[in-house]
Amino acid sequence: MDTLRWLDGINAIEMIDQTILPNTFKYIKLKTVEQVARSIEIMQVRGAPAIGVTAAMGVALGATRFRGADRDKFFAHMDAVCARLASTRPTAVNLFWAIERQKRVMEKNRNKSVEQITRALVAEGKRMRVEDIAINKAMGAHGATLLKKNSNVMTHCNAGSLATAAYGTALGVVRAAHAQGKVARVYADETRPRLQGAMLTAFEMVHEGIPCTLNCDNTAATLMAQGKIDCCIVGADRIAANGDTANKIGTYSLAVVARYHKVPFYVAAPISTIDYSLKSGREIPIEHRGADEVRIVNGGKPICPDGVDVYNQAFDMTPARLISAIITEKGVCRAPYVKSLAAARNA
Amino acid sequence: MDTLRWLDGINAIEMIDQTILPNTFKYIKLKTVEQVARSIEIMQVRGAPAIGVTAAMGVALGATRFRGADRDKFFAHMDAVCARLASTRPTAVNLFWAIERQKRVMEKNRNKSVEQITRALVAEGKRMRVEDIAINKAMGAHGATLLKKNSNVMTHCNAGSLATAAYGTALGVVRAAHAQGKVARVYADETRPRLQGAMLTAFEMVHEGIPCTLNCDNTAATLMAQGKIDCCIVGADRIAANGDTANKIGTYSLAVVARYHKVPFYVAAPISTIDYSLKSGREIPIEHRGADEVRIVNGGKPICPDGVDVYNQAFDMTPARLISAIITEKGVCRAPYVKSLAAARNA
Repeated sequence: MDTLRWLDGINAIEMIDQTILPNTFKYIKLKTVEQVARSIEIMQVRGAPAIGVTAAMGVALGATRFRGADRDKFFAHMDAVCARLASTRPTAVNLFWAIERQKRVMEKNRNKSVEQITRALVAEGKRMRVEDIAINKAMGAHGATLLKKNSNVMTHCNAGSLATAAYGTALGVVRAAHAQGKVARVYADETRPRLQGAMLTAFEMVHEGIPCTLNCDNTAATLMAQGKIDCCIVGADRIAANGDTANKIGTYSLAVVARYHKVPFYVAAPISTIDYSLKSGREIPIEHRGADEVRIVNGGKPICPDGVDVYNQAFDMTPARLISAIITEKGVCRAPYVKSLAAARNA
Repeated sequence: MDTLRWLDGINAIEMIDQTILPNTFKYIKLKTVEQVARSIEIMQVRGAPAIGVTAAMGVALGATRFRGADRDKFFAHMDAVCARLASTRPTAVNLFWAIERQKRVMEKNRNKSVEQITRALVAEGKRMRVEDIAINKAMGAHGATLLKKNSNVMTHCNAGSLATAAYGTALGVVRAAHAQGKVARVYADETRPRLQGAMLTAFEMVHEGIPCTLNCDNTAATLMAQGKIDCCIVGADRIAANGDTANKIGTYSLAVVARYHKVPFYVAAPISTIDYSLKSGREIPIEHRGADEVRIVNGGKPICPDGVDVYNQAFDMTPARLISAIITEKGVCRAPYVKSLAAARNA
């Protein structure tokens, strides 16, 4: 299942609209930079690696929409394109990483024609999509080595095909391990407020025929106390150089209860999710989103009375000390992460 | 705000329908035992103390519906009434405690006329409602001594007016402490799957003008890590003699993350919630409920694909070692609870 792809004939992005899953499975076409930016903001596409590829293709899309051959005007236009895309969401570092990578493509081709630069940006956007899938598969192979036969794996949010170009980070590990007969069942935290676990992870698991149980987030500790969970695997939106990890709200809580129950807690993420410029998780910008995401579930009536204050921090920070290992495409990193993550980057 | 009351003129129970709050505030009249039993099963009334008073009034209602003066037939009828009411929900011990108390009233009045026994049952049902409010107020006074000025209090589910005849257990403590200027803000876990925190606790807090922030359950740990929570106070559905406490699913998770962050974790419950016949929480029967409570939120479309397994344990068990104190109407009990809870019973 492709989360998003580039359409050559019309120079547009086609992507699954994740806001209407699992009830409706539909591809939408994005033909303007503003549409791409909005698709990230309203979470038609989400998941750090998928946001990265979308942003890279968004930059390419912006280039294809430029009319004329004036290179100065083109670069000014592209500055605005990159700025708009960078303004969409603050936490997932892959967004900024992807935009930076496209800026380097522009820099490298600075003296070429607008048409040549545009072709290079499109090629790079498509290449990043293909690379993302290869990276996920490498991550899956490394991560699968951590699982024993018949493991029951708990995951939070969606770090699957839909969070990436395809295959997935945390669910990529699950896919690889399942192919080796190592996965008995996936327990999917529903992941309030946006319910990506219920709407996306459960959808992917049913689609692939991997046994899956959906549970409310607050049930994880009880499932662990009952001995039902062998390990947790989650994705990441940004990882600091010391291994502190920002991921969907509820990840930190899951890591705390996993530690209490001595359940291994793994993070699966590509090197592009590691922000080596940040010493610790305290420096990671954390997005807060609107109250209506909490107040209104799945388009229904408000679940709470008018006038009540709502707290809706979209991500939280899990300190490295609660993470048993970080799985990357370069291998499995263990504490101390400052060393192991640096080594992975250079591997 | 009265959760439920006895209507003398027509011998019926009037109660707030809690399934349609906060959008609709409406009293319903229950005129048959079956209606009372259903109201407990479908959670029009919920919360251990409120279920207890409802069951006691339900027994009285059953007596008023008996026609004739044949005492043998009356007692057979009442056995069926009690059995039906006892079959509704397994975890909240107040249900069984209230039915037993009414059985003792019948036993004590065994030789009196059907009319006299019926009058005694109605009087006892009404008395238990009044007692419940007095108990909650005593609990509130004891519990308030635990709070410092300007405390931020996190609570889970609804242990307020609506969970009792009026005033509340955990929220009774909040009410009493708020009256003393000790409560800066209540953080209400939304409490999936039934969202009693969002629908009922937030409603009560807005109604009373106590500052309240609604948060998704999985956010509690992050709020604690940010130093925003000074203590947690929750209710209970059944407490074993050793202090192990069954309460709404998510309570255990909250207790684990509270311990990790060194946030005091208090349980507020009347003596009638303590099941002295059970040595530990492992013996508490825990209710599982239907998958649709998780699948369908607030009457909307399913949040997950067809064919996914759903785990919906309605309660969990918090071991006594995670509980800083148990607040009863007889005072504040501390570990070792076997001793302190026994002493409270005899106080």
